[in-house]
This record gives sequence, structure tokens and C-alpha cells, in this order.
Amino acid sequence: MIHMAKFSQPPRGTRDFVGEDAELFIDLVSKFTEIARLNDFKPIITPTIEYFDLFAKKSGVEIVQSMYVFRDKAGRNIALRPEATASVIRAYLRNLHKEPKPLNLFYVAQCFRYDEPQRGRYREFWQLGLEIIGDESAAADVNILYTTSEYLNYIGVKHFVQIGNVAFYRSFMDSMGVNSDDQDLVLHYIDKGLFSNAEKLMLEKYGEDASKVLRELYYTDVKRLSELINGYGSLLGERCSKISREVEKTLSFTDALRSIGIDVEYSPSLVRGLAYYTGLIYEVKAEGLDLSIGGGGRYDGLTEVYGGPFEYSTGIALGLDRIMMVLKEKGYVVKALPRVIVIALESSTEIYRAAVSASRTLHSSGIAARVLSEPRVSKALSYASRKGYLYAVIIGRREIETQLVTVKDLMKGEQASLHISELAEYFKQRLLDLL
Amino acid sequence: MIHMAKFSQPPRGTRDFVGEDAELFIDLVSKFTEIARLNDFKPIITPTIEYFDLFAKKSGVEIVQSMYVFRDKAGRNIALRPEATASVIRAYLRNLHKEPKPLNLFYVAQCFRYDEPQRGRYREFWQLGLEIIGDESAAADVNILYTTSEYLNYIGVKHFVQIGNVAFYRSFMDSMGVNSDDQDLVLHYIDKGLFSNAEKLMLEKYGEDASKVLRELYYTDVKRLSELINGYGSLLGERCSKISREVEKTLSFTDALRSIGIDVEYSPSLVRGLAYYTGLIYEVKAEGLDLSIGGGGRYDGLTEVYGGPFEYSTGIALGLDRIMMVLKEKGYVVKALPRVIVIALESSTEIYRAAVSASRTLHSSGIAARVLSEPRVSKALSYASRKGYLYAVIIGRREIETQLVTVKDLMKGEQASLHISELAEYFKQRLLDLL
Repeated sequence: MIHMAKFSQPPRGTRDFVGEDAELFIDLVSKFTEIARLNDFKPIITPTIEYFDLFAKKSGVEIVQSMYVFRDKAGRNIALRPEATASVIRAYLRNLHKEPKPLNLFYVAQCFRYDEPQRGRYREFWQLGLEIIGDESAAADVNILYTTSEYLNYIGVKHFVQIGNVAFYRSFMDSMGVNSDDQDLVLHYIDKGLFSNAEKLMLEKYGEDASKVLRELYYTDVKRLSELINGYGSLLGERCSKISREVEKTLSFTDALRSIGIDVEYSPSLVRGLAYYTGLIYEVKAEGLDLSIGGGGRYDGLTEVYGGPFEYSTGIALGLDRIMMVLKEKGYVVKALPRVIVIALESSTEIYRAAVSASRTLHSSGIAARVLSEPRVSKALSYASRKGYLYAVIIGRREIETQLVTVKDLMKGEQASLHISELAEYFKQRLLDLL
Repeated sequence: MIHMAKFSQPPRGTRDFVGEDAELFIDLVSKFTEIARLNDFKPIITPTIEYFDLFAKKSGVEIVQSMYVFRDKAGRNIALRPEATASVIRAYLRNLHKEPKPLNLFYVAQCFRYDEPQRGRYREFWQLGLEIIGDESAAADVNILYTTSEYLNYIGVKHFVQIGNVAFYRSFMDSMGVNSDDQDLVLHYIDKGLFSNAEKLMLEKYGEDASKVLRELYYTDVKRLSELINGYGSLLGERCSKISREVEKTLSFTDALRSIGIDVEYSPSLVRGLAYYTGLIYEVKAEGLDLSIGGGGRYDGLTEVYGGPFEYSTGIALGLDRIMMVLKEKGYVVKALPRVIVIALESSTEIYRAAVSASRTLHSSGIAARVLSEPRVSKALSYASRKGYLYAVIIGRREIETQLVTVKDLMKGEQASLHISELAEYFKQRLLDLL
């Protein structure tokens, strides 16, 4: 028995992925990469650690408070990234600002937040992300969600999208002279389902009208929003046209998504936690899971926060952990390579070389194969069975002399003798439907 | 002009991978995964952060001193992993100890060391690793190096392997009563090319004989080592047979590697920095690079250090950054997907839907395609050219009515009109050699 010493535990809120979980993890990352590429997103890989200030600037109070922050040996304030968008924008400003825009980028990144671990929430979690920089139109947002949806369909996750638009709230609050911190706080309250706190803050600091319009924005569907806005023309002033444009954008966005088969609904109460969102936002839900599997939206102008010129930008981050939850629930099976074990019955150079050569041949046909040096054939076969190999190729002194090897079907127990040169063809025929 | 504010810099010793570098990175990781799988290694993913104690136990003074260590909000001593083998062994004890052995595992992991950044050395660096747990025989080490070599051949890195065996030094020092800390220090000196310090330590603390044998071990090739050992029979006592066994193992290991076409040389001065090595060790060098691109070896019994039962184990870690250096030097080109842009000339739902449908069709043929909503066709084509697209598909109102779309070859400037249903076939024929 193994004593479960402290040493065998990973830090609280982190996990080891082994066996089927690790296979699933890699499969989902590789399929995300494939779909992102097919949609012409380019990869970007940023550091796992960043200067704390990068995130402190514009990630929102909640994230900043739950960050892993420490000083390095030179006294720099370093953070484990709590999300990757800030890093992507930083890297864009440093390396990619001269590229023709729109610029489509994707990433796979582990992120860290020191929250209380709970179902579907870990201290180290994995995000699959898409970002588009330099495109003002809702077409960029559609592109983000189309790519997301193509990915989720590919891996068999039934899903729908909730959308909102924080520009409605922000433009309204701008027109009321609500300062930036209070704006963030109001949106934070709404995000957390604490609308009454938001209403109270508006009432106390900005008066009854402000509180009343906030309530109406909160309860009005986008389709009736233009009407509402026009009624408050004198109150909203020049922001009126900005809000109207955003209403148009939201409606055409919704139409476009529906036209390409994406299930979408507008929710006035959707705002999301990150402080950098400026317009359209979205959350992706999977059928059968009460947690969101991803979210994103417009963060126009985040480039300015980091000292660059203004750029339009939008993006999404999908939670790999949540997607894994959905797929494990469904019993998703990762396609495994067919596996053959090559048993070298002696450790002589000649036999070993023949065994390696056989396994190399199988590799080039896409069959997983490894050499086991084991003089006791029954021991080797028993190991091969327990490990789930489909076939064993047995090579000993006699096999080298005759060039005929024994192939054993470990499921059926049948065996055959064939020439070494016929191995690849033999397995290709038998394992064709597994390749 | 963008002002290179502090914000645009990643922390010292870390990097952004964008453009060709990011493509190369992903290509190399994906090919490593492919070769590891074909050789029947299973994936394992461990956390990026671990308890400090995990590494403090057995990684060696040098690594412990250069670790990123901090306290989390609950006061736990947390480290960014400086290497992944300790984590793999921890995860093995926790999740995999009941699996039939040998157990072959692979990982891809970023690791962190607070060293002075220099050529080929970063504070955040990437390792591609293979581990085999539960196999005493040199066949496991051969398997590790065979898989490594198959990978390096696959990506076109000419390489050779230097091998050594720390068991010679450790067994000899055991027989001389040299304590564990001094053993680690002697090996550390040898690793750093400071043999005279090692010799001096032995002379001062363990006498003239100890110092003399150390020197002979350091200068004697493995082929003449048995002879040397036998001459010191009375001094080495019962360790003599242990060393003789290791000599045999080293010789058969070398033979096996050569028999399968791996270029290998024995170096008595090779010991490597990690304190947990116990026997055969190896370093992989690439033609044309003076830095090692990977290394590993036997770490039998590391399981015991973490509270588990004794297991034989061996493994390697390849430096992805170093491999990238070699390949960039050689002008390695990552095969890119052929790319087509689909231009939607109006933002109407019908045109947009047709454009998305066209791009989806191309995706299923393995062609990267994205939709650009742009009413000005010349602007769209100019963007497409700058972005290096091979073809543009143009869809407007007329195209919807006639079901005939315009396809433009952006390299040749030629264009054709074809039915929407013919698109996939048209591109498959033209892009066949790129797929």
C-alpha cells in the first residue's frame, strides 16, 4: 500500500490529468487548434507569468483580488496570468501592430485564480481563446462565435449563446456622469445578480432618474430598446445615437448568428465580470450544464490602456475544464491508435534491431508499436493483454534465421506466421477501420 | 508610432511566440505528441504549480536556488515547476501506481528557473518529456532514446547522444563512506567542469585513495572500467559487483543504440545537474549547436523519496527552445494550410449565410477559409493579398441570384465563375499538393 503522503497531493485547486482525462484534454486542444486554423486564426503563445500591473490595469476588482501575485528575486511584482486577453494585447502591441488588420489570433493557455475551489472551478484552469484585433463590425463577433460553434459541433457539444451589450449601460452611465469606478461597480453588481445594489448606488449617488433608467435598461429586451432610448432623448443627449448604433449592431449580430444556425438569445442582464468589456458580450452555455462553458465580447480600446493606439477588438475564452465536464458526462471516447507490442525474446543486438525495425514500419502506417525485451514469452503476452494491446509480434533467434515472425491476435488468441516484410500490409488490412 | 511602454514587455527571461515562431512551436509539440503516441507513451498533464517541498527533496541545490517560490494566500509554500519529472512521479504515486508496469508516459510542460537569461536559456522554457516507470532493464533507456531519435529524425534534427553512468561514481563513493550531500556536491562539481574541486573535496575529507580512484573513474572509458574496478576490489568491497553490473549495462546499452542507428559516445565526465539520477544518464546534442538539446537518465527509487514503494524509472526531457534554435537556423518551414478568403459584399443575412456555408465546405476539405464582410471589393482584395490568401471567393447579391460565385486566383490574377456547389471540388483540384 502506498501512504498518501502530503507529497502525492498537487496544490489545492489544481489537478493531474492522467489516462482518459489526459487523452481527452489533448484531443480537445488539438481539435480546437484544427478548427481555429481552418477559420484562419493564427497561434499566439504568451508567457505564463506577467507583470502584475498588466492585469491590475483593467481586469476588474474581482480578478485582481484573486490573483497569484509574488515578488521575484529582483523585487518585480509578478503574477500568474488570471486570463490571457491582456497578454495577447500586450504581445500584439509589442510584436504584431504592423500586421494588416483584422488580425485573428488563437491561444491555449492555463490561467490561475485563487478562488475557493468548487464544481467546475479550479485554481489552475485552461482556456481556449480566440481574439480579433482591428475590426469594428459585428462580423468579427460573428466570426468568433461561428468558429466557437463549429468547434463545439465538431466535438459534439450542443450549445446556445446568450448575448448582451454593456455599451447600453456604459453609454447611459457616461451621459449621467457616472465615474469609471462606479460604472465598473454597477456592472459588477449586475454580473453577480445583485441588481438592487446597483440600483441603490445609482439612486444614492446619481439621483432618481439615473436609477430609473438603469432599471428600464435592465428589464427591456433589445427589440424594444430603441423606443426606450428615444423616450429619454433629453436625458441621454448625444449618447442617444451611440446607443442606437449599438442596438442596430446587436440586432444584426443576432440575425447573423441565427442565419448560420446558432441558437442565440438576448439577455439585458448579461454583463460579465471583466472590467474591460465595452460593447457586445456573449456567454456560451452547453445543453445539460448549468455553468457557462465560455464567454467574451468587445474590448475596444484595451490597446490604449497599454500605451498603444486605439484598436477595435473582440474575443472569447472557452473553459476547457467545463467542456471536459460536458463530454465526460456524455461518455465521449477519444479515438485511440491501434496498438501492437513487439516482443524481443533475446537482448541480442540482431533481435533487438529487427524488433525496432518492425515497430518503425508499423509507425509509418500510423500504428502505435513498442518493443518489449522479455525472454519469457508468456510473461510478455500476459503484460500485453493487461495493457490492452491488440496484437503481439514475437521475434526470437528462430525468427531472425527464417525471417518469419509470429503474430498473435491477443483478442481472439489466434496466431499466424509471416514474413517480416509483410507486417505492415498485414496490420493495415486488419486495423484499417481503427486508423 | 507605438511607445514601447513597460506594459508591452513580458517579464525578463520570458517570451511571446507569434507568427512563424508560434507555428513552429505548435508544429514541434504536435509532432512530439504524434511520435510519443506511436511509441505507445501515454499523456500526462500535471499542474504548473506544486508545493515547494516536492522539488526541494531531490532536485539538487542549483535548481532549488533558482526556483520561483512564493507563499499563497493560505501561507502554503508554492513553486513554479523547475522541471516535470518530480511532478510525474508524484502524479504516478497518486493516480497510476496500480497500472501494469512498465508504464510509459509523455508530457509537454513549461518550466521556470530564475537564472540569468542567456543564449538558449530562458526563465520560462518548454520541455518535451518521456518517462518509463517500472522497468529495470537498459531496454527502457533504449526505448527512451529510440523514441527521442525517431522524433528528432522526423523533424530533421541531426543528433548524437553522449552517455555516462553516475552509478560508477555513486557506488564508489558509497563504498568510501561519502555522505549523500558530499556525493551530490562532487557530482555537481563534475557537471560544472570543476573536476579539481571534486578531487580536492575527496582528498581533504576522504583521503588520498578516494581522490585517486575518483580521478581514475573520471578519465577511464567504460570499456576499460571493469579492469580498473577489479584492481580496486579490496577498496570497493561488495560495491564491486554493482559497478560491474552497471558496466555491463552501459556497454549493452551502447551496443543496442548503435544497432538501431543512433550515434552514441560514452563520456566518463558526463554526470548532469539533477541530484536524483542514479545510473545511466544521457545528453542529446544537435549537429551545429554547442548547447545540449535534451538530457535524462535513470532515477530509480525517486518514488521512495515521495513516500511510495521503490520503482525503477528513467526518462528524458528535450528543450523545445533549443530545438527551435536548431530548426530556425536551418530555415525549417512549417507546412501551412492553403488559405481562401470568402468576401461577403453585403451584410444581408442571405449573403452572409452563403459565405459561411462556402467557408464551411472548404473547411471540410482541409482548406482554411474565413468570411470577410466588405462591400468594397477592391479593398477586400487588397487586404486578401497583403494577408497572403491564395484565392478569394466573392459573394454578392448577383451571386445569390445566379448561384454562380466569382473565384479569384490572387497570385495569377485570373478569375473564374462557378456554381457554389462546385467550390469544394475546384479547390481540392487546385490545392491538392498543398493539402
